[in-house]
Amino acid sequence: MAEQAPIVRFGIMGCANIAIKVSRAIGLAPNATVVAVASRNVNKALDFISAHGLPEGTRAYGSYEEILEDEGVDAMYVPLPTSLHLKWAVATVEKRKHLLLEKPVALCVADLDRILEACEVNGVQYMDATMWMHHPRTAKMKELLSDPSRFGQLQSIHSAFSYRGDAKFMASDIRVNVDLDALGVLGDAGWYCIRAILWASGYQLPDTAVALRNPKKNEAGVLLSCAAALTWDDGRVATFHCSFLTHITMEISVMGSEGVLNLTDFVIPYEESSAPFSFVSNSGFNNGSLGWIVPPEKHVVSTQLPQEALMVQEFSRLVGEIKSHGFKAEKKWLEISRKTQLVIDAVKASIDNGFEPVQVGN
Amino acid sequence: MAEQAPIVRFGIMGCANIAIKVSRAIGLAPNATVVAVASRNVNKALDFISAHGLPEGTRAYGSYEEILEDEGVDAMYVPLPTSLHLKWAVATVEKRKHLLLEKPVALCVADLDRILEACEVNGVQYMDATMWMHHPRTAKMKELLSDPSRFGQLQSIHSAFSYRGDAKFMASDIRVNVDLDALGVLGDAGWYCIRAILWASGYQLPDTAVALRNPKKNEAGVLLSCAAALTWDDGRVATFHCSFLTHITMEISVMGSEGVLNLTDFVIPYEESSAPFSFVSNSGFNNGSLGWIVPPEKHVVSTQLPQEALMVQEFSRLVGEIKSHGFKAEKKWLEISRKTQLVIDAVKASIDNGFEPVQVGN
Repeated sequence: MAEQAPIVRFGIMGCANIAIKVSRAIGLAPNATVVAVASRNVNKALDFISAHGLPEGTRAYGSYEEILEDEGVDAMYVPLPTSLHLKWAVATVEKRKHLLLEKPVALCVADLDRILEACEVNGVQYMDATMWMHHPRTAKMKELLSDPSRFGQLQSIHSAFSYRGDAKFMASDIRVNVDLDALGVLGDAGWYCIRAILWASGYQLPDTAVALRNPKKNEAGVLLSCAAALTWDDGRVATFHCSFLTHITMEISVMGSEGVLNLTDFVIPYEESSAPFSFVSNSGFNNGSLGWIVPPEKHVVSTQLPQEALMVQEFSRLVGEIKSHGFKAEKKWLEISRKTQLVIDAVKASIDNGFEPVQVGN
Repeated sequence: MAEQAPIVRFGIMGCANIAIKVSRAIGLAPNATVVAVASRNVNKALDFISAHGLPEGTRAYGSYEEILEDEGVDAMYVPLPTSLHLKWAVATVEKRKHLLLEKPVALCVADLDRILEACEVNGVQYMDATMWMHHPRTAKMKELLSDPSRFGQLQSIHSAFSYRGDAKFMASDIRVNVDLDALGVLGDAGWYCIRAILWASGYQLPDTAVALRNPKKNEAGVLLSCAAALTWDDGRVATFHCSFLTHITMEISVMGSEGVLNLTDFVIPYEESSAPFSFVSNSGFNNGSLGWIVPPEKHVVSTQLPQEALMVQEFSRLVGEIKSHGFKAEKKWLEISRKTQLVIDAVKASIDNGFEPVQVGN
């Protein structure tokens, strides 16, 4: 008989909107459950628990310090504003709680390195909450991109992620508040574009980042819209655009010598249960260049669980292996997160340096 | 009874591969016919006429000078290598023949200006042979982009056009020969990307062009693959990638505050009789951000005639109005062509200046 996977007991630190979606995902994942919620106000935590149907007996705390003392919490989901990540993520892992950290994970790589070092020292699992990485569509697309006969060599990548912030968002959302999420749209939507580019490039850091001129900022100087170009010394190129001022779109185009991948809903699929993408290979101009030999093929990938539940399930599987078998933490997620941050930092530096090219750190 | 549109009598100067497609298009257009073909070798012209089913009586010439003397030719289609355009396009219009000029139209805007000035002085119609401009899909997409409630304000544009050159192409095609088409992929595939960006921006020239680092060149220094960013001082941005080293793709993404347009076959539709695009408006995250309110809608636009025949038809209509009614030449095509060349020149200058930003001329 197969061993039962242990159920990972989650605490949620902060009642952000995104915590509604992730607490549902923790409920859907077969190897995870929510046991505690903390807010700076205990009533807010209690309301969150009842409003979103969390399990009976979920403990409510009125401070982040208190939830850290809860020995029944194995892992913490931390959706706090980015400026609070350094303090509370480090405090979490110092209590030997595994860390599922909302993006953007840190204001800069120096801060992130302190979080990641704390994870390593304390032997806890780290993962950033980039949900689309866990959709089976993502694995299916990677399979195609990894096939030399169907995709060939990577040549270029483009990604765009935008959504239109309404008046309330523009006035008060944490993502446009310089004290809470100073990276603005670059840390939010841009995070996904950069992750998509790294994902498509096999996580090879680009050599250079150049931000495009005239990014849009609010009065406090927080980025509302920006774009950048990333280049590798071997000639591969990538571009991305992210915006709070543009209608929703979530695009990745990955162009190889032998094939091309396109999708326009990579961050959050149009619907939960299945997700499309298009791929074309071995095409070209037909006879007389009157059309194409074959058009792109539409693929649809179904999923039993939404991508955020698959994320929680994978995180919890890794936590379970540490708990049950003494495995070491999986470092892949930490490395990917750090590379994403390095590119964000380089793009930010280029914006701050008058759009000069910036070498991407390592 | 409606007046019969005059039939415009075309000469074809040079038997390039693309002339096969365009001579077929001249045959399909109801107001055009081929009457003469010139090559540097009369047998090549004769072979072209018989191999591609041109009308009986089509005259064959063994030099470009001779076809210019043919008074039965109203309009010339010129698909010569770019380095020959200045000489032969000017010679054509000085003979008061209307000019349908293959792209890239010139090696630089100074050369193009000499061609365009000759067109104006001689009162002939000019059009560059950018076929997709004439597909009814293009008009349908423009209608959506022009609708403030469905598209809103333009925020960003991305375009990509690539196709994979085979060994023969890389060794001997005019598009990679420094003496024939010195602009390489920038003048060929890049022409379309830049035109798409200008089209989407209402032909407002960007203020600045910055080429991306590490474009690929062949041994003679001809561009095989390159990318660039274009920016407007009001914050609009565009990026494009063009390549002879990448699988076929023909992408435009146009992102507005209220809607987004996507297509991946803009240069040559997958098939002749209809062409798709996708458009989304008034969408956003659904309740709980578990999906989208509405996914993009797929539109399919049918056409009776292929886009290149519609191009010939429109060009011939304009020529007919000059011939029959003494109308002045339509300047729109000349202006669009010149703007496209200005952006090409700026991108080329940025590549040649170590990827520094270059102000787009006017």
